[in-house]
Parts: sequence; structure tokens; C-alpha cells
Amino acid sequence: MVNSELESVSLLETARRTKQAAGKLAVLSIADRNQALMAIADALSQATPEILAANQQDCQLAEQENISSALLSRLKLGESKLKSAISGIKDLVNLPDPVGSIQINRELDQDLVLQRVTCPLGVLGIIFEARPEALIQITSLAIKSGNGVILKGGKEAINSCQALVKIIHRALATTKVSVDAVQLLTSREEIKQLLELDQYVDLIIPRGSNAFVQYVQDNTRIPVLGHADGICHLYVDSQVDLEQAVAIAVDAKTHYPSACNAIETLLVHQEIAPRFLPMLAEALKLKQVELRGDQATQSIIATQEATEQDWQTEYGELILAIRIVASLEEAISHINTYGSRHTEAIATTSDVAAQTFQNQVDAAGVYHNCSTRFADGFRYGFGAEVGISTQQMPPRGPVGLEGLVTYKYKVSGHGHVASTYTGNDAKPFTHRDLD
Amino acid sequence: MVNSELESVSLLETARRTKQAAGKLAVLSIADRNQALMAIADALSQATPEILAANQQDCQLAEQENISSALLSRLKLGESKLKSAISGIKDLVNLPDPVGSIQINRELDQDLVLQRVTCPLGVLGIIFEARPEALIQITSLAIKSGNGVILKGGKEAINSCQALVKIIHRALATTKVSVDAVQLLTSREEIKQLLELDQYVDLIIPRGSNAFVQYVQDNTRIPVLGHADGICHLYVDSQVDLEQAVAIAVDAKTHYPSACNAIETLLVHQEIAPRFLPMLAEALKLKQVELRGDQATQSIIATQEATEQDWQTEYGELILAIRIVASLEEAISHINTYGSRHTEAIATTSDVAAQTFQNQVDAAGVYHNCSTRFADGFRYGFGAEVGISTQQMPPRGPVGLEGLVTYKYKVSGHGHVASTYTGNDAKPFTHRDLD
Repeated sequence: MVNSELESVSLLETARRTKQAAGKLAVLSIADRNQALMAIADALSQATPEILAANQQDCQLAEQENISSALLSRLKLGESKLKSAISGIKDLVNLPDPVGSIQINRELDQDLVLQRVTCPLGVLGIIFEARPEALIQITSLAIKSGNGVILKGGKEAINSCQALVKIIHRALATTKVSVDAVQLLTSREEIKQLLELDQYVDLIIPRGSNAFVQYVQDNTRIPVLGHADGICHLYVDSQVDLEQAVAIAVDAKTHYPSACNAIETLLVHQEIAPRFLPMLAEALKLKQVELRGDQATQSIIATQEATEQDWQTEYGELILAIRIVASLEEAISHINTYGSRHTEAIATTSDVAAQTFQNQVDAAGVYHNCSTRFADGFRYGFGAEVGISTQQMPPRGPVGLEGLVTYKYKVSGHGHVASTYTGNDAKPFTHRDLD
Repeated sequence: MVNSELESVSLLETARRTKQAAGKLAVLSIADRNQALMAIADALSQATPEILAANQQDCQLAEQENISSALLSRLKLGESKLKSAISGIKDLVNLPDPVGSIQINRELDQDLVLQRVTCPLGVLGIIFEARPEALIQITSLAIKSGNGVILKGGKEAINSCQALVKIIHRALATTKVSVDAVQLLTSREEIKQLLELDQYVDLIIPRGSNAFVQYVQDNTRIPVLGHADGICHLYVDSQVDLEQAVAIAVDAKTHYPSACNAIETLLVHQEIAPRFLPMLAEALKLKQVELRGDQATQSIIATQEATEQDWQTEYGELILAIRIVASLEEAISHINTYGSRHTEAIATTSDVAAQTFQNQVDAAGVYHNCSTRFADGFRYGFGAEVGISTQQMPPRGPVGLEGLVTYKYKVSGHGHVASTYTGNDAKPFTHRDLD
């Protein structure tokens, strides 16, 4: 047997064991799942020196390989980042149980009751990038929602990830959650194999570039929760509070430019552009933002030239494309053409314009008079998120615990058969919702 | 330009126009959408002779081509089937609006409000088989839920489908719903092209064989709502009301054997098998059911031999596989191995056994003391269904209007920016749910 076959058998076996462990985790009480979370939080806290040392190893190797400073800062797990991740676990403990919630409780006929009850998905396959604290957050979300998880972290973070999973396993061994419920893959080749395990893995969450998410979608039959890039817009309407619009634009562009909920293009109504653009340019100049405008913009303020390519680009840095539009409709049409269905905002004092925008723009988030940067599971009050989905089907937008469960229809009767309810003498259903 | 290129351009253009029409349909009031449904119902009613004539043409051609009698009976659209489809449209009018429902209404901070509101998916691509009345049902569900729809019916039903869509278009022309919102594809080659239109089509619903659904899943990036085959089981526990269990088994197997919610395999606890199986065999003999049993079964009643292949087969006809198990756990394990996650039932007088079964069996429907045949959108009180999803993610089970909408997060503020809520002086969120 060649080496790759050996590995492949072992991943299959790993997945089978995760599925089995997930089946047991799924029926544990919320008290047992919360207790496992607390055990993990305590173990991580106690093992802080061990974790930081492993992370330092990763950072040193990364520096030797001259990785970008942005990547290095994501990789670096200092004491405060770790503390905040551990406190996130404790927050999660306080959130309501996403499992076992009764969404429908309906009498179909006398003594025949239908209930729709939430339940875990099964096993999550999560492929994430350099940030080691993502492993902590994802693992806790999985356990809270009763799911097993197979984790594949970035190779830069391998020592950190291995240390974290070792400590999590150590903690789980003292709880009712099997250590098999949390697995770590370490080789890049295993990604392709993971995508083929539709028998054992119920949801793939790829966190990474748009191209990577698309690669995953094209190579698996497993449902994919796409944490894709964000091409977000702010549209400044003709009727607008100018200073408010400038403040929103500055926050949405500069507060964290590499976040997916930062804006890339600003659209402005032609009637207000001559007054708004100079104010905007002045504010963004203070923040060192490079502006790229269409011809109409350039006739008002000095900018680089924006081309078709700019409307399609997620800069992820301090660059803003600007386009002047003739109407609200043109703005909506631009957004529905170039946007990535992430988060889109309008600044306007007109409620009609706001409503039209929020109804007709096709995106997970449609905002009025506030920054696109609010698109985030914590800010929405979900406690934490596994990612932001830019897909059309639910779960859409920031996905927390609720997106990691599915439901079952439970029907309980007393010997009821379907033939009673069909044909000429069919008994009618009562279809009465119960309290 | 060769012919296939011409067709391909035209399907792209069709899809683009459907998307545009769907965008307008999505913002129509429920009164406008219901009015369109009533117009369709009236038009179909008036055009009954025209529809029946077109269907007769299909049936004659089908008979000349010697299609199976089962297929022919599905293809045939008599006056009563048509009447019942038209009355289904009127039922749909009376159902609540699935669009615009507020699922979350939360204050994030003073004057900063988050709402999660349901909205249409966009454009549905539906590939269905011979039954022409499916076109009526699907089109009405699409319009009620504010979605455009591209339909591809079986080639046997082409005259029926063309007549129906012509009449639907005629009706829509008198309403606020654009005729472009409902499109019919007529050539088989267009299926492959349809699957590539992820820019314009938001959900594919393939209704057909398991193999066809899998083909669709493997050939598209568009989300697929899998109306797959059903390998459903009834497990008869050691503690059981024997007569009730026999009645459930008879209904679940014989009431409509070709339905996906009929059972294919019966599992029975070894302690009760000697008493139960003879009763079952007698009852099923009256219904001409062929039995295939494992060795233990054959030592109690006379049956054909069941092999591994039988556990994996959806017969769709009057054949039942029987296996004796040593425990509830063995039954659950058999079902989780061979079942298609459709609908699974237990017959037992033990509440503990029922609960264990309903919690641990991984399927869209988990039933206690009733027939698997209740798995159906109408019987659940959903009014109608586009299909039954055997996928893990919602929408799961029978999918009605609710499965054809998604949601948006609307955030409305008064100049709120994210930087206020981060850093050392971060203002806390209030996260207060509003009424």
C-alpha cells in the first residue's frame, strides 16, 4: 500500500469516528455541552504558556519565510487575543441552546401531532486561514450546537493548531463529549479528500479567498457555507445629511479596510455630488485613502481614473472607487450587478428612497444611515459567528449557532394511517397549531 | 454562428429577463401576487378544453411510443386532475404571505435597529417529470413566494406544458406580474445550460430519480433542493401493539407503493418477531406484497431471500424487505446506514424507545406509531409542496412556500458607525429584542 492510500484510509476512518462521536454529542443535554465548553475554557487558560510558545514557533518560522506583515499579524496569538477567545467561550455558554427548539407544534388530527424540532447538522468540515483563535471559536460553536468538527487550519499555524487541539482533547477527556468529536487535519492534500466525504461530513465552511470558496464549491457535493469576499457599497442619495454621510463613508472604508464588510465603491447621486465629494475627499485624505473616480467624479475632485475593473475589485486596503449615478435606480442596478450580496448601505433622509433601496438591493445586509461594518455576528447579538454567508439561501449573512442546526419533523400518533385521509370518504385534517 | 450557440445565447437572455421580472415580482404586494394567482386559476378553468386537447396529443404520442402504463397515468391530465390543480391555486391564495415576515426585530443600540425580514429567493429552476399538473402547482408556489421560475418539463408532456404556459402567460398579461417571470424550456439540451446559469438562477429543484438529482448536484454551483428517492423503514419494537403495527405496515407499504414516503424495509425486534411476522405476512398477502426476508425471518415465515442489495433498494412497488434485529440500537444503526434520510417510523408502546428512535435516527421525518405516508406538504398543513428534501440543511422534508424564501438583514440607524463600538472606550450594544 502506498503512502497516499494509507493517508486516505486514515482520513476516512477519522471522519467515520467523528460522525459517530457527533451522533453521541447530538443527544447530550445542554448542561453537558456547556460543561464541556467550560472545561475547554479552563484548560486553555491554564495552558496559556504552552499555547503562546507553540504560536511563537509558528511566528518565527513565518518570519523566516518572509510572509506578509498582514498575515503575520493574523497568525500572532498574544495573551490578550487568547484571553478574549477564552472569554468568548464563556459568553457562548450563556447563549440559549440552539438544539431542541420547537418551531412548529401542530395537531394534524386528534392524537396525531407534528413537531418541527431543531437538531445538530452532524459533522462540520472547516477550512480556515492563519488565525489560530478561529479554531477556538469554531470548536466552541460546534460543541454548543451539538456538532462534530473536522478542522483544517493554515499551514503557517500548524504548531498553534496542534497545541490547541491537544489541550481541547485533554479537556474533553474529562467530559461527556468524546475527544473524537474534534479532529485536526494537518496536510493540505487532505482538503481534497475531505471534500469527497459526503457520507460523513454535512457542511463545509471554507474561510478564505473568493477563489478558494469557489474551488471548494466546484469540488464537493457537500453543502458549502460560503464565507466569500465582500464588494460592499455605500450609496449617497440626493437628499442626505452630508456630514452623517461623510462619517459613515469614513467608518465603512477606513475602520478596518481588510474586513469583508468594508466598502470598496461609493456611489453618489449627481445632484449632490458637487457638494458631497469635496467634503468626502477632504475627510478621506486625512486617512490616506486613495480615490479612483469615474469621469464625472474627476470633473469635481482630483482622483485616479476608475475603470470597469475597479467596480469588480475588493481592494481590502485604503482605496475607494467612486461613481456618480443619475438616480437611485442606477445605484441599485450598479450594486446588483457588481456587489457580492454581502452588505450594502444607503445614506438618505428620504424614507421612500431607503425603503426602495432596502427592498430592491439583493444582499444579505441592506442598511440605512449606518456603516456596513455592523455586518458581524457579535454586533448582531449572535454571540459569535462561523462566518458571513453571501449565498442566497439561509443561513445568510453572519452565521452563528442558528446556522449550525437543522430540523426534524417528528410525528407522533396512535396507529394513524394515511389511507384514512384520502379517497372519497377522506377524513379532513384539523391542522390546528398548539401552544 | 452554429445552432447550439444561438440556443445558448437565447437561454442566457431568457434567464436574464426572468431575473429582471423576478426583481419586479419580488416587490409586488401580496394582493397583487394573489390577484395574479386568481387570474391564472380563472384562465386555466376557461381554457380546460384547450388544455385537455393538448394533453390528449401527448398521451397519444406516448402510447405510440409504448411508454409504461405508470408513466402514462402520470402524464394523463383528466378534467378532475385539472380541477383539483386549479382548486389548489385558490387554496394557495388563502395561505399567509411568506414574504416580509419579520423574524428578528432587535435594537442594537439606541436608534439602531436590526430586522431580519423574509424575501424571495429570486429565480427558481425546476426540472420535473411527466405530470403536467406539477407545472401548475410549481408556478403558483413561485408566484405566491415572489419568485420567477424557469420550468423544464418532461419531453412526453411537451404539448401539455406549452398549452399551460401559454394560458398562464395570457392570464399574467392582465396582471402586475410580468409574463417573463414564468418561462418554459423545451429541449433536453437546455438542462445542462440551465445548470450553468448561477448568475441568474438561485435554486434548482430537480424532481426525478436519485441518479438524476445526483447528476444535477454534480453539475452545478447553484444550490440544489434534492427531491431524491426514499428508502424508508418501519421498525417494530419488542413492546408493541401488534395490530396497530400491522395496520401501519400495511398502509406504509401498500397505500401508494410508488410514493417516496412508502416503506421498503421492515425491521422487527427478535423478541416479538415470532408473534408479529405471521400476522404481518397474512395481512400483506391479501395485498399481494412480495416478501424478502433475512435468514432469521425465513425461519419464522416463508419469504424470498433478502440480500445486502435489498437493504439499499427503493422498490417503488409491492415488495417488502424484512430483517430481524437484536435491539433498538441495531435498528437505528441499520436505518442510519441504509436509509435515505427521508422518513422513518417506530411502532412501540415504550415512550423511552420512541424518544431514543426519534432523537437518534437521522432523517427529515422521525415518526412514532403512525404511517410514513404522512410525509407530505399538504398533510403537514403547508398547503402544497415543491418537493421533499432529503438533504441535511434546511429546507428539509416537505418544502412549501417557506422553503422558497430567504431573508435579508435590514439595519437602520441615524449615522451610527462601527468605530463607536470598538477599542478601549467601546460603547456596549443594548441587544434588546423589540416586540
